[in-house]
Amino acid sequence: MSTSRLEAFSDGVIAVAITLLVLNIDVPHLSFGETLAHGLAQQWPVYAAYVTSFLTIGIIWINHHAMIGRLREADHAILFLNLLLLMSIAVLPFATKLMAAYLRENNGQHLAAAIYSGSFLVMAVFFSILNIHILLVKHAKLSEPLSEERRRQILARSISGVVPYAIATALALVSSYLTLAICAALAIFYAFPIASGGTEQAQL
Amino acid sequence: MSTSRLEAFSDGVIAVAITLLVLNIDVPHLSFGETLAHGLAQQWPVYAAYVTSFLTIGIIWINHHAMIGRLREADHAILFLNLLLLMSIAVLPFATKLMAAYLRENNGQHLAAAIYSGSFLVMAVFFSILNIHILLVKHAKLSEPLSEERRRQILARSISGVVPYAIATALALVSSYLTLAICAALAIFYAFPIASGGTEQAQL
Amino acid sequence: MSTSRLEAFSDGVIAVAITLLVLNIDVPHLSFGETLAHGLAQQWPVYAAYVTSFLTIGIIWINHHAMIGRLREADHAILFLNLLLLMSIAVLPFATKLMAAYLRENNGQHLAAAIYSGSFLVMAVFFSILNIHILLVKHAKLSEPLSEERRRQILARSISGVVPYAIATALALVSSYLTLAICAALAIFYAFPIASGGTEQAQL
Amino acid sequence: MSTSRLEAFSDGVIAVAITLLVLNIDVPHLSFGETLAHGLAQQWPVYAAYVTSFLTIGIIWINHHAMIGRLREADHAILFLNLLLLMSIAVLPFATKLMAAYLRENNGQHLAAAIYSGSFLVMAVFFSILNIHILLVKHAKLSEPLSEERRRQILARSISGVVPYAIATALALVSSYLTLAICAALAIFYAFPIASGGTEQAQL
Repeated sequence: MSTSRLEAFSDGVIAVAITLLVLNIDVPHLSFGETLAHGLAQQWPVYAAYVTSFLTIGIIWINHHAMIGRLREADHAILFLNLLLLMSIAVLPFATKLMAAYLRENNGQHLAAAIYSGSFLVMAVFFSILNIHILLVKHAKLSEPLSEERRRQILARSISGVVPYAIATALALVSSYLTLAICAALAIFYAFPIASGGTEQAQL
Repeated sequence: MSTSRLEAFSDGVIAVAITLLVLNIDVPHLSFGETLAHGLAQQWPVYAAYVTSFLTIGIIWINHHAMIGRLREADHAILFLNLLLLMSIAVLPFATKLMAAYLRENNGQHLAAAIYSGSFLVMAVFFSILNIHILLVKHAKLSEPLSEERRRQILARSISGVVPYAIATALALVSSYLTLAICAALAIFYAFPIASGGTEQAQL
Repeated sequence: MSTSRLEAFSDGVIAVAITLLVLNIDVPHLSFGETLAHGLAQQWPVYAAYVTSFLTIGIIWINHHAMIGRLREADHAILFLNLLLLMSIAVLPFATKLMAAYLRENNGQHLAAAIYSGSFLVMAVFFSILNIHILLVKHAKLSEPLSEERRRQILARSISGVVPYAIATALALVSSYLTLAICAALAIFYAFPIASGGTEQAQL
Repeated sequence: MSTSRLEAFSDGVIAVAITLLVLNIDVPHLSFGETLAHGLAQQWPVYAAYVTSFLTIGIIWINHHAMIGRLREADHAILFLNLLLLMSIAVLPFATKLMAAYLRENNGQHLAAAIYSGSFLVMAVFFSILNIHILLVKHAKLSEPLSEERRRQILARSISGVVPYAIATALALVSSYLTLAICAALAIFYAFPIASGGTEQAQL
């Protein structure tokens, strides 16, 4: 199968997942005497989780194309690993909603935060596995040959992207706010071209 | 009509359907004294049905492109049969939700399971009908000529993919858990490249 | 603007609208002693409206590509008329839900049915206006020159597709069931290749 | 990265966002003795906000392609700025729902209207920033060289598109109806080819 179909389908799933995030933002139902400004301000975790997830999915999309763009054609193993990666992305609207709903709850905030950054962790792991498969196992199918050193370099960066999400997930035991802050900081760090030094460096 | 437009539209519908599945996963409303861990664990049928449907739709997408990729151009009969196939895929978020909601209910579990695997059955049947139409009726429009033996081989595999879903649907009379387990096992069997022996063998 | 971008965006909107229809199908909440079979059977208007709308949107997609496929490039008027056509398609999930909810209600069934087939009528009118604009005003931009007779023929068929929806809308005053039956019959008539005599004849 | 992938992903997000708007239109639950006609008429702000947002997103899509169409290739800064623009579009279904829900409420109508046209304002600002970045900073990557005068002309029009949304947002302090009317008028003004003088003039 040509990679253009794989990219078109992946684009579709990622575009729908990133846009479905907006369904998590409800119009507030005000209690008696409450102003709309207060009602909207009260649900700030919803906006924080929305922006963090939107930017993170956007960055994974950029990296996904850099990864698939190196391929000349896709085989069944690549299609299957890509499907697992897409599933980890498609599930993010739920993880985002859970995070926003439980960020401030005494009961459940640690678990919700662990699931939230854990979802990003799983996404980063699937991304790395697919990248390892492409660069080490299927490197004969690359559209342009890459030196072993260059492939190792890309993989090192890809795998090192797993670490901060593992830390954020572990720190969910300490505070859900801390986990959300780390995820948001990572999204901004990877998104800003200056901080991350261009497309290549921004890869997970 | 060129098949590229047919593929683009089919990609779109399948990508939206597979991503809409996430709307079936609700954030649990905890009862007094219930932990979030318990609330989330309680809704395990939702996750099991989600993963099963996600992988199954992903596999039908892979097979859909192998099927349409053999065609040079599409006519009205192919467009119409493809539309029926897309309808059977687009309805899966509902069948998945029904399955998850009634898996453990004394009242309705058998019917819900029959509808769930019955939906996959209908999808496999429409897939086979479209494949038969392309390979037997419209084989003059194939992009590369296929020997009659090769065409029969592909069709045999396509039609044999109907059987396990028919069995899973019949076994819904015995147990909804059994039906879900068979559907999940089929998704994993078709998805794993080693078990199924490559893209070609993975076809329904 | 090249027509390929116009087609890609239109494909996207139509694919999302046709797939969102599934959100209209709810899992039934059973009352005490009610079986799931009864609960599901009770909501048959939901399924009837779903299948009718799905097939109708699928047919408009087929016709849309035949129409845009004749164009070499798009200008602002075409983009704007196409946007109105897409709006009339994007609103169909609501019209479908309204139809299903009020089909059997004494209070509102006539209006709901009039809005349902009225939505198809508006869609057919916008389709005809865009077709007239392309074939009469912008025929210098056609990818292949068409004789005036051929253009008139296509337009006559396009405009005659408006008539049955106008009749179905008028008959909503008599019975909502009748309106739904006509819309369903039209969807099946246009969809079946034998009845309609190929892609060309199937055009609204 | 080639701009075709950027356009495909942007098309996807914009197509999903514009189609998700329909989920804001609910089937009315009638109170005792209320007719469906009355129930539907009562929710006219929902329709007004729907049409305004649909046309506005449609126009931004047209302008987005004119903008990206001038580019030969995309770098990380363009991808990131485009992601911010897409986020401002993806959030519009929420802003539209908020506007419709609070248009007539004494409590909150001014804030809801300010957020509604403020969302369009943010979208227009991100659009202008991306346009400035492309035309001034990255003009070496344009697919066809543009004279400095022409570039200034395009930018002036792009930036001047920010002004009416700033005014509409400020006037939310006076009346939510006024703000909605201005946004609707802008959508119609930019959409009509005659009023706006062709694609080029229609740019925000």
